[in-house]
Amino acid sequence: MKTLNVDLGERSYPIFIGEGLLGNPELITPYIAGQQVMVVTNETVAPLYLEKLKSSLIGFQVDEVILPDGERYKNSESIDLIYSELLKKRHNRKTTLIALGGGVVGDMCGFAAATYQRGVDFIQVPTTLLSQVDSSVGGKTGINHSLGKNMIGAFHQPKVVIADTDTLKTLPERELSAGIAEVIKYGLIRDEAFLSWIEDNMSDMLACNPEVLTKAIHESCRNKAEIVAEDELESGCRALLNLGHTFGHAIEAHQGYGNWLHGEAVGAGMIMAAYMSKELGWLDEVAFQRVSEVVESAKLPIKSPESMTKDDFISYMSLDKKNLDHRIRLVLLKSVGEAFITADYPQESFLKTLSDC
Amino acid sequence: MKTLNVDLGERSYPIFIGEGLLGNPELITPYIAGQQVMVVTNETVAPLYLEKLKSSLIGFQVDEVILPDGERYKNSESIDLIYSELLKKRHNRKTTLIALGGGVVGDMCGFAAATYQRGVDFIQVPTTLLSQVDSSVGGKTGINHSLGKNMIGAFHQPKVVIADTDTLKTLPERELSAGIAEVIKYGLIRDEAFLSWIEDNMSDMLACNPEVLTKAIHESCRNKAEIVAEDELESGCRALLNLGHTFGHAIEAHQGYGNWLHGEAVGAGMIMAAYMSKELGWLDEVAFQRVSEVVESAKLPIKSPESMTKDDFISYMSLDKKNLDHRIRLVLLKSVGEAFITADYPQESFLKTLSDC
Repeated sequence: MKTLNVDLGERSYPIFIGEGLLGNPELITPYIAGQQVMVVTNETVAPLYLEKLKSSLIGFQVDEVILPDGERYKNSESIDLIYSELLKKRHNRKTTLIALGGGVVGDMCGFAAATYQRGVDFIQVPTTLLSQVDSSVGGKTGINHSLGKNMIGAFHQPKVVIADTDTLKTLPERELSAGIAEVIKYGLIRDEAFLSWIEDNMSDMLACNPEVLTKAIHESCRNKAEIVAEDELESGCRALLNLGHTFGHAIEAHQGYGNWLHGEAVGAGMIMAAYMSKELGWLDEVAFQRVSEVVESAKLPIKSPESMTKDDFISYMSLDKKNLDHRIRLVLLKSVGEAFITADYPQESFLKTLSDC
Repeated sequence: MKTLNVDLGERSYPIFIGEGLLGNPELITPYIAGQQVMVVTNETVAPLYLEKLKSSLIGFQVDEVILPDGERYKNSESIDLIYSELLKKRHNRKTTLIALGGGVVGDMCGFAAATYQRGVDFIQVPTTLLSQVDSSVGGKTGINHSLGKNMIGAFHQPKVVIADTDTLKTLPERELSAGIAEVIKYGLIRDEAFLSWIEDNMSDMLACNPEVLTKAIHESCRNKAEIVAEDELESGCRALLNLGHTFGHAIEAHQGYGNWLHGEAVGAGMIMAAYMSKELGWLDEVAFQRVSEVVESAKLPIKSPESMTKDDFISYMSLDKKNLDHRIRLVLLKSVGEAFITADYPQESFLKTLSDC
């Protein structure tokens, strides 16, 4: 098992990463302040891991909310189910919520914890690679609104994160690859040595080798934690974490959320960012090929959807065609292992990227 | 005009108190970070003060949400109206929400600000005495849930509070008295000198004398701000602010919320706390009479409702009659001007208070 401490002053917390952590009471009970626990999970994860988690919670009042599975349930109705269960079971301000599941469960459980009785404790037990390397670090919680994705939320840090690599054995292959997209991202934006390690260990990651996954999760969380410690409320460098995401979000929106997985869209989006960085003279052909190959080796798409035109990108990026002088801020690569944020680039390079990739 | 600074480190903010502040752009515009403003108000307050407020916001994108008036609308549907308006008018993370109204508007607007795009700025423009002396200090925001009052919320501090005593001229007399209940409370719990001043100036307060109200609001906010600075997240001494509230909440619930105003129930509740303090030997008869007289002089009820029995109190205080050994924590008076929190008292004194008052 590896341990990583996320350093946020009073809100600091540890992340435990490794095999067989889920049923271990020694890892979780020291972080439960009161006698009450509410596990929030979904219909897919509950049959696999709920009993195992509960076996580590003997002696507590343990209640549970099992939500339907899917991003489309990340809304105020689901949050209200959590509130209602907390109130019916008379959970007080000392209760602890536990998120058992992927990013959607973590976002909702965290937001319920941020707002129940003006804020109670919560613990993250992420069960997908994407949530283990991304959403469990940083304290972003929230839900979608019918008029916008992730528009309602709060910053609320967990007391502890327990990332058990055993849970990845039941993950569909596409979701494993989608998680690896974010692992690659950390290498590309700030850690060339980690990227080399990823390249050397890709097949073991895809084969769910627990030691290799433990290291991949640890290094990803360490990189993210360093960025978040510097910019907790996302006013500066935290935006580097959006490498590939501006292009990726347009792909997700165009395809309809859930058709391309988030990580798949980010994979293609990172290649678009690398391509544009090459167009602008930052990356040479060798460096661009390196980005392309590592994404491809993770079994991720390396091109945007066939059906998606330059104009589709422009419209999903909320650009007004009459006003193409406006530049959106993009995360680009100065080199492999060093990203930067810019809105200062010739629009032709941007449009060529949308056409070519 | 008086200014009070609420000292909460990075979250510190000023409170401006006095006559004719509402239309003054110099007081409000320095606290608006972006170009967008969303005023949240209700149907009662909007016709009286919305245009005046907007006259101080020239040059900004000013949008508005006018909610129905009343505690029963302090729910997730109203919050959703605010979110929808923010999204429809494309308010970004630099927007500022302005609460124009009483405590209900302030609580809802503050909660919307705490959770829109994970937290945006907000400004309080309280228009009732109760909200000027109580809810505008302390950062508590939130809504009711169908299963419990004030159960959903967040701590979120405003950027500035503007308390214009002119707005109290349109306040119904009963609501003015209800606000004075909280003013008296600050004197009773920690400021005997302020209580003497209140006794000397009660008729001027009731007559809406602006200088006297300015001082009453300033001293109330100063007392509350000192307590909140010591205990922002309510883990200790902040509970002193609940003097009269444990009894008062039972009265409000028994009568149906809105029939007795919150401040009226607190008025009777403070006398119950004083009576029990006398029973326990902390207050003598003279001190008890002093409490009773100052509450009565504010035209507040000094007895709980005729129709309410001891058993009603017990049931609304969530006490199990089979388990009367359990003691609820009460705020009592050690002397006039010094409150304390205790769960260590003979149950007979408590039951006698419920019967006698």
